[in-house]
Amino acid sequence: MLTPHHDGSPLHVSTQTPALGDVVRVRLRVPDSFGPLRWVGTRSNPNREPRFDEAVLVAEAHGWQWWEAAVEVENPVHGYRWLLVGQDGRQHWLNQVGLSNVEVRDHDDFRLVTHAPAPEWAASSVLYQVFPDRFAKSRSAPSDVLRERGELPDWAIPAEWTDPVDPVPPARSAQLYGGDLDGVREHLDHLEALGVNLLYLTPFFPARSNHRYDASTFDHVDPLLGGDDALVRLVEAAHARGIRVIGDLTSNHSGDAHEWFRAAQADPAAPEREFYYLHDDGTYESWLGVPSLPKFDWKSPELRRRFIEGADSVVARFLAPPFNLDGWRIDVANMTGRLGDEDLNEQVRRTIRATMLDVNPDTLLLGESTNDAASDFQGDAWHGAMTYTPLTRPLWSWLQQPGSPAGGGIGFALSQVPTFTGREFVAAHVRFAAGFPWRTRVATMNALDTHDTPRFATSAVPGTVPVAFGLAVTLPGIPVVWAGDEFGLTGVDGEASRTPIPWGSEASAEVAPVLATYRALVGLRRSHPVLATGGIRWLVVGDDAVAFVRESADETLLVFAARAAATLSFESAALSVGSALPARSDVAAAVFGNAGLEASDGLVTLSATGPTFAVWRLPGVAAPAW
Amino acid sequence: MLTPHHDGSPLHVSTQTPALGDVVRVRLRVPDSFGPLRWVGTRSNPNREPRFDEAVLVAEAHGWQWWEAAVEVENPVHGYRWLLVGQDGRQHWLNQVGLSNVEVRDHDDFRLVTHAPAPEWAASSVLYQVFPDRFAKSRSAPSDVLRERGELPDWAIPAEWTDPVDPVPPARSAQLYGGDLDGVREHLDHLEALGVNLLYLTPFFPARSNHRYDASTFDHVDPLLGGDDALVRLVEAAHARGIRVIGDLTSNHSGDAHEWFRAAQADPAAPEREFYYLHDDGTYESWLGVPSLPKFDWKSPELRRRFIEGADSVVARFLAPPFNLDGWRIDVANMTGRLGDEDLNEQVRRTIRATMLDVNPDTLLLGESTNDAASDFQGDAWHGAMTYTPLTRPLWSWLQQPGSPAGGGIGFALSQVPTFTGREFVAAHVRFAAGFPWRTRVATMNALDTHDTPRFATSAVPGTVPVAFGLAVTLPGIPVVWAGDEFGLTGVDGEASRTPIPWGSEASAEVAPVLATYRALVGLRRSHPVLATGGIRWLVVGDDAVAFVRESADETLLVFAARAAATLSFESAALSVGSALPARSDVAAAVFGNAGLEASDGLVTLSATGPTFAVWRLPGVAAPAW
Repeated sequence: MLTPHHDGSPLHVSTQTPALGDVVRVRLRVPDSFGPLRWVGTRSNPNREPRFDEAVLVAEAHGWQWWEAAVEVENPVHGYRWLLVGQDGRQHWLNQVGLSNVEVRDHDDFRLVTHAPAPEWAASSVLYQVFPDRFAKSRSAPSDVLRERGELPDWAIPAEWTDPVDPVPPARSAQLYGGDLDGVREHLDHLEALGVNLLYLTPFFPARSNHRYDASTFDHVDPLLGGDDALVRLVEAAHARGIRVIGDLTSNHSGDAHEWFRAAQADPAAPEREFYYLHDDGTYESWLGVPSLPKFDWKSPELRRRFIEGADSVVARFLAPPFNLDGWRIDVANMTGRLGDEDLNEQVRRTIRATMLDVNPDTLLLGESTNDAASDFQGDAWHGAMTYTPLTRPLWSWLQQPGSPAGGGIGFALSQVPTFTGREFVAAHVRFAAGFPWRTRVATMNALDTHDTPRFATSAVPGTVPVAFGLAVTLPGIPVVWAGDEFGLTGVDGEASRTPIPWGSEASAEVAPVLATYRALVGLRRSHPVLATGGIRWLVVGDDAVAFVRESADETLLVFAARAAATLSFESAALSVGSALPARSDVAAAVFGNAGLEASDGLVTLSATGPTFAVWRLPGVAAPAW
Repeated sequence: MLTPHHDGSPLHVSTQTPALGDVVRVRLRVPDSFGPLRWVGTRSNPNREPRFDEAVLVAEAHGWQWWEAAVEVENPVHGYRWLLVGQDGRQHWLNQVGLSNVEVRDHDDFRLVTHAPAPEWAASSVLYQVFPDRFAKSRSAPSDVLRERGELPDWAIPAEWTDPVDPVPPARSAQLYGGDLDGVREHLDHLEALGVNLLYLTPFFPARSNHRYDASTFDHVDPLLGGDDALVRLVEAAHARGIRVIGDLTSNHSGDAHEWFRAAQADPAAPEREFYYLHDDGTYESWLGVPSLPKFDWKSPELRRRFIEGADSVVARFLAPPFNLDGWRIDVANMTGRLGDEDLNEQVRRTIRATMLDVNPDTLLLGESTNDAASDFQGDAWHGAMTYTPLTRPLWSWLQQPGSPAGGGIGFALSQVPTFTGREFVAAHVRFAAGFPWRTRVATMNALDTHDTPRFATSAVPGTVPVAFGLAVTLPGIPVVWAGDEFGLTGVDGEASRTPIPWGSEASAEVAPVLATYRALVGLRRSHPVLATGGIRWLVVGDDAVAFVRESADETLLVFAARAAATLSFESAALSVGSALPARSDVAAAVFGNAGLEASDGLVTLSATGPTFAVWRLPGVAAPAW
């Protein structure tokens, strides 16, 4: 059935960057088949008191009515939803989850946000995640030099590039492959050919592990990675190719070898004493009770000054020359500043963002929050989430083989991957995406996997990796390539997935087709701006296949994803581009994949003979001008 | 179908008043028919990072398994939900909304709360709401004395007790009937006979209206109501009868005749200047733009000191001798401290509560928040909500005649009452109740109507007033009698419902049966503690009838509510009191109403021949001891 539609995209909202007090025009599309309406409008909740604004019919096109309401933005995060009242008096509420005849709560409202927005380039980024120790060694890698001299750090267990990853302690975090930042720089050709334009480096500060989430200082880049100069060289070279670079900061904790923590432990009178939760008995608070990761106490003004606040802070220094990073991904953003009855999270994240705005407003701030991230991600600081609830876990549940052994690092309960139908996949996706303002949604990471998770390809239903990555590049959000996925790498958990990149295998029979698929899908994403900022409307959802459109005034992309042979049908009118159009192949042009598309008797039928990801391009939506 | 069950009641949670760091035991009941389970336990989210605690089977009884998990309370509001994993690997999440196979967001979690709890008497209260001008005139009413002397306030338009309410300005807020606090005191017999034990007085401070929400001072009780002494007399007399008394404070605004506002307007240097949002052009912020209600600016420390903070504040003074009020209902709690990009609501409500805890911890704090109140009502200050979403609006939608003209004051969109089936009634009730911790839910007002709404009886489906009030006394929450409802009064809006009480009509043919029904239902509530604090489990929901149980270890009440002739059946095992029991009339004893209850073939069938409210008493639930 065709249902009324609204989302936060430019087709439906007159501005993406409203200011407090602005009147924003918002539009609702109602299919003619929905029936006569007595009233259409929005329900806002300024200062938590409802306000209704009546909409007017501004256009009719291709079987759809366009209704428009004027909404004054009264709070920095201004929620609204639609109300349609039928001639029968029946009330239909539309929020980010969908339609309900029963009144709905506030947390799924659409939202207008007046906080400083993400940089314009955020939503059109394709992110490439690099774990520096495992990506590439430069010609004269510092680790080789130090190893020859016998000067490797005491914790390091050197590994050859072709050694298997050993996930068992002590090797687990100590196996040092010796990848470095010049190694990354020397492989920028690969990134450019892949088509990615945002490089995310996991931590580059000195530490006592290969993952470096246990920083021992934030003062400089790890000499094992080439030091500060290597970072400067890498960012310069990346920028020259149109690739931005963001770093990774641990705002929840440092390593226990951090100079601040050592100072705090050594001297009760040290200014760093208040940076941590040190108890009188010598114990201290740490990340999930892991002693090597002492937790920061953000009540300390001095900690804020050194780390996140002002031009001399760590946050600021690496965004300024000579480093010129384009932003930060913040580790364990969800737990930061939270302990017992203390909750300084909002203060910390807002301070980080304020500092970034001062040093360079054109920077991106992503926060790790791998479960229900919505309450912290309303737009006051984090631009987007590194989260696994809206896409990663639902995708795994739909496309992994039943009984897939992996799932822990993604946050599946008990590390078990439940098996979903397509309907459950979409229900989970919509449920979690509904918590975000639109602008947060388009800057949230669409990852199949990361350095903390098993690799998606490990146990995927055969043939579905292109389906999964196809959805990552076509659903709202920043697509993520975890370096190595494009080589078809596998790994059963977050440790095993940190495999060194098998450079030189690009042309092999195994790797070449995977790489080609990744390049094509990244290319699809980059060549169609509607995939970055366009609206999304689900057309039809079955157990084995789903279909939706991404829409703008310029173009419409019809996306069909199937995990097995499947046929889906929907009313032609759903496409909103005119009833005769879908039957004409020059109008619905296949731009990716290979699937059946037929139109007859007012129905469009999509068919797949096996795992399929297919995209067609249609005209843009005939929307009235703003 | 029988489904797993948990709620916040003492059957399922080992303590209602945990402290931070306590380990609380929580229990899940799983029907044997649910199928074999691979894992059962809870998912908490301390510091926003999930933690799973496995449950163990502690008992089996009457077809139910009892599983228990130990949950450490790590944050002041500690959310948790249940996860059941079937032998087939299927995940079943249980939160306050119900079961879901798809992962759920956090906002419907069960919650353990460590903030200071409501007084023990809160949940076992039946509240009686009095609008002082319209309740009763004492033998020597101050308004009569002043009227004789020609000294009535200039705004007042005196009315005789039998005059109709005139809802049109200028009479609207100016019609002065002259009810007073001694009038209330002289009618405490009526309250006692009705069985209520908590008297809520709408504002008693001097103002320029009959409703007094536009206070001109908070220093003393309005002389028109008898002044401070009359309040002292009333509270003393009420206490002597076991009736507690709470007042009504406007924390969002004062009247424009308030001494603080006049001082602020008169002198830019006055300390009161910062109490309000006064603009340079002479305009100021006010409640919904109504100039007579200037909005408080809670950034002012001096305002906080005078009004809400410390022993000399208004909040404290009336809880202390000689007044000894038992708490406050706070008007427009939802908007308090909120304007544009400012939000001091949490600070204000916590300050109010902290002051109350200092002066007398055995006091109640209710906040008006008539829509989705959940986010402010997590237990840090407000004990319960005066809200219309979980019960009032759903009840109206189920039990009002279609096309009922009234609905505005209750917050229905466009003042129109949509018509619901019983399923929609329950869906709406459960959806909004799910936002509250259990302790907030049992202290939230179950009102059919208030001084701001039309009276429920006005357009109710004939015969359903007992159904509606029956639900108000049997669903979790504090039942509310808006004075006059027990006389069968009607009124099409919040103004018309402020009818003077028709004293002397109690024995009339029209009033006597209504009064008898109210007395019986209040009596039902007061004589069964399970209705105050027991768990709730829905058994079966149809379009015209619904049934649930309230449960404790001491007793179970089976509640059946029908708006029309209806028959409902459910599995006997659902009652959890043994399969043979419901067939025996000595076990299922009718304690209210008249409806059919039959048991055979493992099914219990409830039947009604028209609008019906019926309650049966059964044994308590055979739960393992804690």
